[in-house]
Amino acid sequence: MATFSAPEQSRPRAGRGELQLSEVHAPSSELVVFPEDAPLQLESGQLVAPLAVAYQTYGRLNAAKSNAILVCHALTGDQYVASTHPVTGKPGWWEALVGPGKPVDTERFFVICANILGGCMGSTGPASINPATGKPYGLDFPIITIGDMVDAQVRLIDHLGIGELFSVIGGSMGGMQVLEWAARHKRRVATAIPIATAAWHSAQNIAFHEVGRQAVMADPDWRGGAYSEHGVAPKNGLAVARMAAHITYLSEKALQGKFGRNLQDRVTRSFSFDADFRIESYLRHQGSTFVDRFDANSYLYITRAMDYFDLEGAHGGKLANAFTGTETQFCVVSFTSDWLYPTRDSKAIVKALNAVAANVSFVEIESDKGHDAFLLDEPEFHATVRGFLGAAAGKRGLDGGAR
Amino acid sequence: MATFSAPEQSRPRAGRGELQLSEVHAPSSELVVFPEDAPLQLESGQLVAPLAVAYQTYGRLNAAKSNAILVCHALTGDQYVASTHPVTGKPGWWEALVGPGKPVDTERFFVICANILGGCMGSTGPASINPATGKPYGLDFPIITIGDMVDAQVRLIDHLGIGELFSVIGGSMGGMQVLEWAARHKRRVATAIPIATAAWHSAQNIAFHEVGRQAVMADPDWRGGAYSEHGVAPKNGLAVARMAAHITYLSEKALQGKFGRNLQDRVTRSFSFDADFRIESYLRHQGSTFVDRFDANSYLYITRAMDYFDLEGAHGGKLANAFTGTETQFCVVSFTSDWLYPTRDSKAIVKALNAVAANVSFVEIESDKGHDAFLLDEPEFHATVRGFLGAAAGKRGLDGGAR
Repeated sequence: MATFSAPEQSRPRAGRGELQLSEVHAPSSELVVFPEDAPLQLESGQLVAPLAVAYQTYGRLNAAKSNAILVCHALTGDQYVASTHPVTGKPGWWEALVGPGKPVDTERFFVICANILGGCMGSTGPASINPATGKPYGLDFPIITIGDMVDAQVRLIDHLGIGELFSVIGGSMGGMQVLEWAARHKRRVATAIPIATAAWHSAQNIAFHEVGRQAVMADPDWRGGAYSEHGVAPKNGLAVARMAAHITYLSEKALQGKFGRNLQDRVTRSFSFDADFRIESYLRHQGSTFVDRFDANSYLYITRAMDYFDLEGAHGGKLANAFTGTETQFCVVSFTSDWLYPTRDSKAIVKALNAVAANVSFVEIESDKGHDAFLLDEPEFHATVRGFLGAAAGKRGLDGGAR
Repeated sequence: MATFSAPEQSRPRAGRGELQLSEVHAPSSELVVFPEDAPLQLESGQLVAPLAVAYQTYGRLNAAKSNAILVCHALTGDQYVASTHPVTGKPGWWEALVGPGKPVDTERFFVICANILGGCMGSTGPASINPATGKPYGLDFPIITIGDMVDAQVRLIDHLGIGELFSVIGGSMGGMQVLEWAARHKRRVATAIPIATAAWHSAQNIAFHEVGRQAVMADPDWRGGAYSEHGVAPKNGLAVARMAAHITYLSEKALQGKFGRNLQDRVTRSFSFDADFRIESYLRHQGSTFVDRFDANSYLYITRAMDYFDLEGAHGGKLANAFTGTETQFCVVSFTSDWLYPTRDSKAIVKALNAVAANVSFVEIESDKGHDAFLLDEPEFHATVRGFLGAAAGKRGLDGGAR
């Protein structure tokens, strides 16, 4: 097992396509590589080796190693929770929540976030080199599950010498990882905050993902997944997938409030197929910028993992069985206008936790921002996280401000 | 102006692509062609000539020509309301509602349905021959609106010598045409039944359509709209568009109830990108069968017309203005689980009608079938239509059963 420190952030930047590739093979973050003789066994029975896990940390681990918080990222997220994204140059995706003095206070806690297994920001995924061929895996990468992502994170946490995580936090697919952590590693998770998530993917969830996958696969530049060998990428298909998904991240009300029927850079309809409406222009932008920072095959594998996620099915059809004997303290959060993982999905989790007499609090945040609310500046949500972590830290003798 | 009777339904069938084309140029239904010297003036200012309108009729027009009902079809519908579709061989799309003894009783009423302007089943659309070039219009076809579709229908109704329509009925985009008829031709519409529709397209509605259009246009076989000249068709892109749209036609509950997480033809997950889940298999089927019966450019033009639809905006920002002075009797219908055109959209129509003291009844049907409920066997919906038409017909002295 070898650890490499991050390359300089200031290295020269190449063109866009190359940038993406450079993060796959030489991420701008910490990297740990578990060698071929220590493969990761997947739920499918397949092995992944070597296993690279790229990660960022914020704050300092205390001497007792009792102040570590693992943040689990969502479908198109990455390890850059609270620091500049090396490809886009944009702020970290959860800077509203994580940082000095923030609800997840990096002056108090040691925050870790790893790029997921299957990702494209340095952890092993379909864009990584397949040691058997010397070429990128493409579709030879094995199908992965949310549980497999968690097992890769366990490797990292072991490597960091941390026994118990003070908290595991994540929204959307990050929340699924939180639930898997709590189910699989009961002794290692003191507190857990699954946000805007579900214990299984619904038919509608699967349907939207399948549309996205078909859009990618319909792009002739996908080349059966071997596009990088041909120096192309299925950008059009991936952009369509992103556009479709993006609609599900916002509430109908938020879309109406933000865009309505407003026209973009014009006063009347063009009577053409131009992006007359601001919502069209916005979606096209979302699609086209996404393809510069994300690998199409990663998108396929990660959506597949989400569709396969069914914590209830994996526990004999009874979700409560996933949490039997848990001593983890849970804070389950949902948002009123989230129609991708609506409040009833969170309530199903709470019900299961109650059935095993777990310590659980549940907060439904009033918001019209839809699923994306977990990424945005939602004061009541942030106050909830701050309060929950603060109380739990106090109870465990983790003093505020110092280590 | 020339009328052509329908060719024999029993003519030999060619391959799939050819079938579609044959319906564009020689539909299996009645056809009226308005010649070049009688162009249709569009809202854009452009002209369409010649103008073909392909239509079906059911029942018999009475001597007073007072029992005619115009059915307006939705985005991917056609004139085959209550008779076999010539391409798919499937029953008419509204046979549950229209036919002898049905709520729209063809023993009592003379039912007309025309393929819309911009369609691909015999009325003039982007697949029709552009007289200026001798080739299919493709993107040279002008952008059309819902109002333009109605104006083409007006030509047909004039041609049939009908002054006042006893009723104009339609769901979804058909309902938009109903609203335009009622707004533009107040004296010619005795009763109107707009179903599962809206007076304007929301940002979310536009967003889903834009995803579909981008999927079509991203397909290299689209060829800038000139695919038919190259003997190809953007089937993959159009299938993705149909899949995305199809999700919006069903409620989350209906999807969950019908498919849930059930697997298709297997007992365990395949750990591949096969269509493991029944919902995936269903959507792929919806996509692949659609492309055999629908023209991709028609899909672009019709979705654009829907996005442009804004009866409120067209009337100075006050929807009630669209209906000032109306003597039409309205029956507005919505379905509880329709999230594409939810009940609040119907209520906005009702509110506008009430503001001008119109005769309006409003029924919200309890259904978990989503937007598609208007096409399905919904007894309460059917009873509503039967009751409304029966009462209005009685009041106007249209006797039941005879002409």
